[in-house]
Amino acid sequence: MKKLNVGIVGYGFMGRAHSNAYRKVNNFFDLKHRPVLKAACARSADNARAFAEKWGYESVETDWRKLIEREDIDLIDICTPNNTHAEIAIAAAKAGKMILCEKPLALNAKEAEKMVAAVEKAKVPNMVWYNYRRCPAVVLAKQLIDEGKLGRIFHYRAKFLQDWTINPDLPQGGAGLWRLDVKAAGSGVTGDLLAHCIDTAMWLNGTIDTVNAMTETFVRERKHNLTGKVEKVGIDDACAFLARFTNGSLAGHKALYTFEINGEHASIFWDLHDLHRLQYFDHRDEGRVRGWRSIHVSDSDQPYMKNWWVPGLQIGYEHSFVHQVADFLQGLADDQPAKPDFKDGLATDYVTDAVLQSAKTGQWEKVKKAK
Amino acid sequence: MKKLNVGIVGYGFMGRAHSNAYRKVNNFFDLKHRPVLKAACARSADNARAFAEKWGYESVETDWRKLIEREDIDLIDICTPNNTHAEIAIAAAKAGKMILCEKPLALNAKEAEKMVAAVEKAKVPNMVWYNYRRCPAVVLAKQLIDEGKLGRIFHYRAKFLQDWTINPDLPQGGAGLWRLDVKAAGSGVTGDLLAHCIDTAMWLNGTIDTVNAMTETFVRERKHNLTGKVEKVGIDDACAFLARFTNGSLAGHKALYTFEINGEHASIFWDLHDLHRLQYFDHRDEGRVRGWRSIHVSDSDQPYMKNWWVPGLQIGYEHSFVHQVADFLQGLADDQPAKPDFKDGLATDYVTDAVLQSAKTGQWEKVKKAK
Amino acid sequence: MKKLNVGIVGYGFMGRAHSNAYRKVNNFFDLKHRPVLKAACARSADNARAFAEKWGYESVETDWRKLIEREDIDLIDICTPNNTHAEIAIAAAKAGKMILCEKPLALNAKEAEKMVAAVEKAKVPNMVWYNYRRCPAVVLAKQLIDEGKLGRIFHYRAKFLQDWTINPDLPQGGAGLWRLDVKAAGSGVTGDLLAHCIDTAMWLNGTIDTVNAMTETFVRERKHNLTGKVEKVGIDDACAFLARFTNGSLAGHKALYTFEINGEHASIFWDLHDLHRLQYFDHRDEGRVRGWRSIHVSDSDQPYMKNWWVPGLQIGYEHSFVHQVADFLQGLADDQPAKPDFKDGLATDYVTDAVLQSAKTGQWEKVKKAK
Amino acid sequence: MKKLNVGIVGYGFMGRAHSNAYRKVNNFFDLKHRPVLKAACARSADNARAFAEKWGYESVETDWRKLIEREDIDLIDICTPNNTHAEIAIAAAKAGKMILCEKPLALNAKEAEKMVAAVEKAKVPNMVWYNYRRCPAVVLAKQLIDEGKLGRIFHYRAKFLQDWTINPDLPQGGAGLWRLDVKAAGSGVTGDLLAHCIDTAMWLNGTIDTVNAMTETFVRERKHNLTGKVEKVGIDDACAFLARFTNGSLAGHKALYTFEINGEHASIFWDLHDLHRLQYFDHRDEGRVRGWRSIHVSDSDQPYMKNWWVPGLQIGYEHSFVHQVADFLQGLADDQPAKPDFKDGLATDYVTDAVLQSAKTGQWEKVKKAK
Repeated sequence: MKKLNVGIVGYGFMGRAHSNAYRKVNNFFDLKHRPVLKAACARSADNARAFAEKWGYESVETDWRKLIEREDIDLIDICTPNNTHAEIAIAAAKAGKMILCEKPLALNAKEAEKMVAAVEKAKVPNMVWYNYRRCPAVVLAKQLIDEGKLGRIFHYRAKFLQDWTINPDLPQGGAGLWRLDVKAAGSGVTGDLLAHCIDTAMWLNGTIDTVNAMTETFVRERKHNLTGKVEKVGIDDACAFLARFTNGSLAGHKALYTFEINGEHASIFWDLHDLHRLQYFDHRDEGRVRGWRSIHVSDSDQPYMKNWWVPGLQIGYEHSFVHQVADFLQGLADDQPAKPDFKDGLATDYVTDAVLQSAKTGQWEKVKKAK
Repeated sequence: MKKLNVGIVGYGFMGRAHSNAYRKVNNFFDLKHRPVLKAACARSADNARAFAEKWGYESVETDWRKLIEREDIDLIDICTPNNTHAEIAIAAAKAGKMILCEKPLALNAKEAEKMVAAVEKAKVPNMVWYNYRRCPAVVLAKQLIDEGKLGRIFHYRAKFLQDWTINPDLPQGGAGLWRLDVKAAGSGVTGDLLAHCIDTAMWLNGTIDTVNAMTETFVRERKHNLTGKVEKVGIDDACAFLARFTNGSLAGHKALYTFEINGEHASIFWDLHDLHRLQYFDHRDEGRVRGWRSIHVSDSDQPYMKNWWVPGLQIGYEHSFVHQVADFLQGLADDQPAKPDFKDGLATDYVTDAVLQSAKTGQWEKVKKAK
Repeated sequence: MKKLNVGIVGYGFMGRAHSNAYRKVNNFFDLKHRPVLKAACARSADNARAFAEKWGYESVETDWRKLIEREDIDLIDICTPNNTHAEIAIAAAKAGKMILCEKPLALNAKEAEKMVAAVEKAKVPNMVWYNYRRCPAVVLAKQLIDEGKLGRIFHYRAKFLQDWTINPDLPQGGAGLWRLDVKAAGSGVTGDLLAHCIDTAMWLNGTIDTVNAMTETFVRERKHNLTGKVEKVGIDDACAFLARFTNGSLAGHKALYTFEINGEHASIFWDLHDLHRLQYFDHRDEGRVRGWRSIHVSDSDQPYMKNWWVPGLQIGYEHSFVHQVADFLQGLADDQPAKPDFKDGLATDYVTDAVLQSAKTGQWEKVKKAK
Repeated sequence: MKKLNVGIVGYGFMGRAHSNAYRKVNNFFDLKHRPVLKAACARSADNARAFAEKWGYESVETDWRKLIEREDIDLIDICTPNNTHAEIAIAAAKAGKMILCEKPLALNAKEAEKMVAAVEKAKVPNMVWYNYRRCPAVVLAKQLIDEGKLGRIFHYRAKFLQDWTINPDLPQGGAGLWRLDVKAAGSGVTGDLLAHCIDTAMWLNGTIDTVNAMTETFVRERKHNLTGKVEKVGIDDACAFLARFTNGSLAGHKALYTFEINGEHASIFWDLHDLHRLQYFDHRDEGRVRGWRSIHVSDSDQPYMKNWWVPGLQIGYEHSFVHQVADFLQGLADDQPAKPDFKDGLATDYVTDAVLQSAKTGQWEKVKKAK
């Protein structure tokens, strides 16, 4: 088994989720590569050391540039705020490292284009952590659509609601709160939660041609957690948009994460809250006993599930990350890069850019197509 | 269209439910007979008149014997407490009247046997108001079982819980509270709610051979609402039993009304709280998309539903009564009596008797079979 | 009890639903008026007679003008295709009749304005059959919102999907198929199903300021059922729009009928498929046991339900019509007109007009406000 | 951090589940001990080596007696068929090892008593892998009951159905099929699945006094997978029993894994298929908005969940094992042994013994009480 030395930048929520995936993947998937937790990088040496101790990283760094320079590192995993993705990824590409980058790929599509150019020039394996593509129930949805089980697609609806910013007393600012800071995050729910919706939507239903959007900021001023000053909030708390897919279907996106797709023959529905289930309605079932089926995706013939337990026993959120690492490693072994790569990440950024533009202009905005 | 003159005894909850059924049935079902609300009978003339006025009964009586003697009455509907069913029904049979009797058929099987003998001797059409047999979703369950869709039946589970007696301050006694009075009701949940479970069970899954039961009275003393005295409670608040069906399947009954049947090929589940739905799981569905289907029973090819609205629009509780009247009338027209008749009601009483006996002896008790 | 003589125009699906409501309302609601089924009107005498026989109408008419002229008619109920509502209603108003008109009020807002002017000039009681306002679970939602239980409203989402037009072999044209004929119907799902969504939305969440919409016709040509010729389809099969409510909340409407409202403190969700339930999530519940509550709206302290059965026993679709008649009659008795009246119907038409306009222009369109 | 050297016997399904728990526990829980995967034991050296390689065990053994003799082993984890638990555990106790034993504790209560005696004499920490006690939703249920939120308990219902033995072509016998072999397994569903139900039941609702049971073997003959001969099947395919708890509540157990508990004030329901949810109904909620709450157990104030991700992100089956290891290690650190220990395992065996006896005699059987 080949070793694959991982250097991770960032140690927050995603640092944990990714590390867990590297540690577990070979216990459950038969693969040619074994990730080795080589180095953890954080600006604070104390934080880096505590994280490395907890997860078994062999060494620490406090400067991501040093990490990239290290010859014993094969893969850079970027888990830092959105506004740092581009710089780190471009440098890592130049150094010939494989890159797994947290989503969204960049602050905006312009930055993301440069990242794609960099990895393509360097010819390095790359992937974006749109992990919901790896939920067995979502993959099952993909299979059903690709097999034509749904027939012509009429409607695609998704929504992703979270309520943690509903509290007006929550400050904006640095550290764990950078998602509320427009400079670090780029946008609010649009780039954060909605980006997941868009990636899944395009993966399942193809490219999007035009969008029309509205955003809203319900809490307009917040104290900054470092300066203590009350400042204007730059991010959006809600975003809704209409879209026309290239295949002629319509969408109404909402930033709960669910999606529903209505086809000529069948419909499917998925909800992150019960991510091990897929709801399926098939018009071709015998009439009297037709109904929404609640599929418990835990059987060995269902995506990824032969690697886990037995039918009836569910997996959880973290397994989508394990699956992504498994697919990345499988892709390396087969020389068939796993998706979503940076180019896919860019395509999502094209949509979020158009959404934000449309929310400003009130007009339908064309979505740029990735070449 | 032939007229069918109805004389009803009792004006409580079931008096309303049955009257509504007589009034609506011809609006939604094409039938040869039209029920005419001829007479309402209650001991108090004021109550009888108020009820007749509300529902459109043409006349009133205060003595059920007089009602039975009337030549212009074709059908006696018995909606009085359990301890009066036998006497009224036997007299009505002797007078050659058709009889629709509220469930349970009698206080116990001994009384019920006499009632069956009386209607058989008099050769009068008779039916027991086990109305859940007429819920489209339950009938659909019956169709699926009879078609062999479930294969060999392994398990039958049902439960019927209600919580209105949980309050220890509720008095027992006369008027609206006769169900808490063992003399008027015979038993508590066993004869009241459980009888529905048993009737449905035997209709769907065949006869029951042996049972083993336990009953419990959680509130052991209650004030009597007439005497004001605190008296011992004679009824059971809970009843659970195990049963062996003749077909080899096992049951665990509970006195919420749901049933679940697990067969070799398929399983079904029904819950009174959403009586317009049937849950269906078919092992023969393609593996990856197998799951419990929630069937919205509202399509025209589903039982009774072509007579109502359009797919997607549900019916309610009262419609089971309308269906029962429709079937009764259709049975008259075709000379093929509708079920459950008194004999079916007796079969249920045999089971409740055995259940109560088993709860006493702690032994498995054989269930008497109707000839 | 005062008699209220009803003359109904049209005998289709809504003719049945309304007639059932008139027949049942006094059995379950204590009211000062009793509707009398006086006359049924249809162009074909045979159809009129058959309908009158089935439902107990005392007489028939074949010309709605004659019906309106009759002195023994107090109330005209309009159940005919959308393109006839205005003419009949205006004539009925001039004749001083009360009017209950099926939804949508008219082909478009222009016609609807004339209807409102007519009933206001004639000072006659009037109501539009937006019957979903009368589902107990929807009324409970209204109560919760009005009591401030939801706090500030952030999101309102609704959708109403039906699949009966998915079949490309379905013809368009006369008789039972007028809903597919743009001349008779005005629009497709927008005026038909979406109008219900809009009426409920504005009732629950206040007026709508601006909209942006898209419509789509999936089946673009259909055979005409009378001429046999394949013709272009004029109606829309799908309509989606974004809206800004006056109260600052956002909407994404979809033409399944569900709505979800997310407030600062609580959220609610309702689905026509289980119309007796309301889903409720209260952020103020104790944290550890917080969750979506599935409320079975059947208790006597829940809207309308004290008039029906007992807790746990559901009502169905048709009961919303009974409730509407009950409220109309109660409004007459109290001299406090029940809603939605024609003016409310007009407000909905203003929105559908703007939606259709926006779908054409691709721009956000202002919604005209009813004076 | 103290090291705790683990020696595991057996490498099947439970070998994986337990090993995963040892590997992850320190990543998510702050503890004083760190399990070290020291040795894996299997009769076949090849199997032992493959398993050790996959999971990172440092060494292998082919004789469990040798494993127990090793001084560098602190804890023996028993994952072998039921009929070997007693011998291994007693020897391990004598050698002064901590023991974590897969459930059921033994083939029967008689064996289990000896195991309890051995660990008590040796004063070694011991635990049985009744892992469902560690599902956050189940622990939340326990908290609610212990806080009196449910009031007096009236009903406890549980069922655990699995369908993998429904296929009559499945052989019985050695290797992965020992659960079908009565000699290795002791009983069928009773000791296997039902034991989980019983352990949870007694943990939540206290001891059981008497039971009355029935068992059934649906497939009575099966080919043996080693001899190829068709032999009589010794295990039970189904088991149902009634029970009286010491606290006066009633139970109806069924061998799907769900439980429902109905108390005076509140009811709870849990289903393994969605193990991250707890259903909760509180009679004391305001009447109009009372309903079953579907609690998504993923908030930091809910059991164990502060150690994982963020609200809304579910965990899976395997996490119950991680929690058990965490609690075991915490118990060591605090010198307050975690439960269920062997004595608790024995109590469950007393119940299954009585259940099997009752199924034979048809009588209510007393359940022996652990001292």
